[in-house]
Amino acid sequence: MPLVRIDMHQHLADKRAVISAAVHRGLVAGLGMPEDDLFQIFRLHEPGDLVYSTTFPDADRDDIVFVQILLARLYDAAQKQAMGAAVVRELVAEGVKADNVLIACTENEGPDWFAPSRDFGQQVLSR
Amino acid sequence: MPLVRIDMHQHLADKRAVISAAVHRGLVAGLGMPEDDLFQIFRLHEPGDLVYSTTFPDADRDDIVFVQILLARLYDAAQKQAMGAAVVRELVAEGVKADNVLIACTENEGPDWFAPSRDFGQQVLSR
Amino acid sequence: MPLVRIDMHQHLADKRAVISAAVHRGLVAGLGMPEDDLFQIFRLHEPGDLVYSTTFPDADRDDIVFVQILLARLYDAAQKQAMGAAVVRELVAEGVKADNVLIACTENEGPDWFAPSRDFGQQVLSR
Repeated sequence: MPLVRIDMHQHLADKRAVISAAVHRGLVAGLGMPEDDLFQIFRLHEPGDLVYSTTFPDADRDDIVFVQILLARLYDAAQKQAMGAAVVRELVAEGVKADNVLIACTENEGPDWFAPSRDFGQQVLSR
Repeated sequence: MPLVRIDMHQHLADKRAVISAAVHRGLVAGLGMPEDDLFQIFRLHEPGDLVYSTTFPDADRDDIVFVQILLARLYDAAQKQAMGAAVVRELVAEGVKADNVLIACTENEGPDWFAPSRDFGQQVLSR
Repeated sequence: MPLVRIDMHQHLADKRAVISAAVHRGLVAGLGMPEDDLFQIFRLHEPGDLVYSTTFPDADRDDIVFVQILLARLYDAAQKQAMGAAVVRELVAEGVKADNVLIACTENEGPDWFAPSRDFGQQVLSR
């Protein structure tokens, strides 16, 4: 149940849907995730909101697309790096410059997620 | 000192105060937190910003309220799940559909927090 | 490659650049980071978005500046606290009240970061 936060500039507003789909394809391919496990929070930013190095660590950036992924601690380093590469490849295919993408994962555990099931909803409503 | 990020659609703007109070009651009840330990960041979103499965993992969603909670690693799995259930029950009592709520916790440690005390402020100002 | 999220009220919009620089100086000084390792996401908020205790844990707050820092697990508790103090001192020097600052770190590992290098970009483009 990864939760993905994507922060990018306003000028990419019209590309939200394709960027959403591209990032998701990268996660599904890289992590072997179910396709319907889709949770993303986009945020479009005005100039001045996103502050970034144009060169660090070894990049040639002229814009930035931050992709922060919260996911359960189920994947090893190689899987996470493969997923990162897959996400970037998918974004490049949609016209995003590779160097402009910065991906950061944070991990939690299964019990850190709480998504009420249909049953839960009924239990609450019937109390 | 949990820090709670709540991302939801603009149409819930008028419910911010009741949703804020409901989430906080859930944390206080579920984790045994002090009532004045209150830190929340709301973000209202336009259509297109929040991308979500309407069914995963076993839900019937027609909207989404993301509740992401950063908290110190002090609570076991049962406590965190009880807190999640308490938050959802409180939100349901305010008219939010249970299935529309997705809660994700991330954990850090005590030294990862830095809140200057009154003393600190005075020390800095007197330098 | 810390990623810093700064959430504060709209009335501080004109101070974004100085707050950005101040937070970054604190990280560079406190963690011994390279100066060009700069990644920040600002978010300006309307009244009602930021909910906070005016007193917890031992503060006298009349506003809030949330500084959330995602960084690799490379620093011990003393370093992180020193960094927090450095960030607050730099912000105070720019007119921000110490008590109004709340800093929270979360940690990940090296393989949780993915920043395509110039080489990666070329590899993708030449596929």
